[in-house]
Amino acid sequence: MTAPELQRYLHQHIPISAALGARVIAADPGHVRLTAPLAPNLNHQRSAFGGSLSALAILAGWSWLHLRLRPTGFVGQIVIQGNSMEYLVPALGDFEAVCRGPSEERWAVFIRTLGQRNRSRIELDADVSVADSLVASFRGQYVALRDGNLRDR
Amino acid sequence: MTAPELQRYLHQHIPISAALGARVIAADPGHVRLTAPLAPNLNHQRSAFGGSLSALAILAGWSWLHLRLRPTGFVGQIVIQGNSMEYLVPALGDFEAVCRGPSEERWAVFIRTLGQRNRSRIELDADVSVADSLVASFRGQYVALRDGNLRDR
Repeated sequence: MTAPELQRYLHQHIPISAALGARVIAADPGHVRLTAPLAPNLNHQRSAFGGSLSALAILAGWSWLHLRLRPTGFVGQIVIQGNSMEYLVPALGDFEAVCRGPSEERWAVFIRTLGQRNRSRIELDADVSVADSLVASFRGQYVALRDGNLRDR
Repeated sequence: MTAPELQRYLHQHIPISAALGARVIAADPGHVRLTAPLAPNLNHQRSAFGGSLSALAILAGWSWLHLRLRPTGFVGQIVIQGNSMEYLVPALGDFEAVCRGPSEERWAVFIRTLGQRNRSRIELDADVSVADSLVASFRGQYVALRDGNLRDR
């Protein structure tokens, strides 16, 4: 799945991503980089609304996991179980969210568990930046559920 | 500030709140209740996107604090410092976020600190529900900064 394909998928299936103005800059197993313009995401203080920063980071984590799982033949769902955000400084410009995935060791455990139990949980971080300066830190807990195991999330 | 006034304020100053379809159902010192329709907030699984649930909850907490501070003569900014979300079950319909504020004891401490230091921090919870069933729990850390004390957040 190329960056334009991922962007089309997000805009089509998660329409608020289009309202955010989310664009996919990079989409490969190493990292996913999404950007959004400030204008549609402004708050009353003329910085980016925290909910928009969160939403872009959630999408970055989900997209990374989606891309990384595809070549494994995974068929199922990826759901978010929880997340936390730390807002460090006001985001005063167009912003980006980058997810680089976990360590290879952690990834191997995740894949092994998915194979054994048809569901597996992983924690993914995303950095939210404006012009290469970190403005917020995201951590999300995602669960992959193989088809046939969808009820008991 | 009435519910329609708050809704107008949000849509005007935080435009993504209009894209979410956020409506203000109740806005009083006891609680703030915001709703949003499922359609613009769908995800690829036909439930509500976690980023939209988060965004509505962030707005509920911010709105509650904004409303509760107004009669105290507060002039300054309210910023979010951090938040966490737990997604309990898929949100399969229009959803609402309700913030009821903290205990009166906690509020008194917050106001006293704000008076002494011109800045004060408070933790606010919001319940996110679909048809009166809880689907997600939000906790946010907000900081109020009196004007003149805005640099050192």
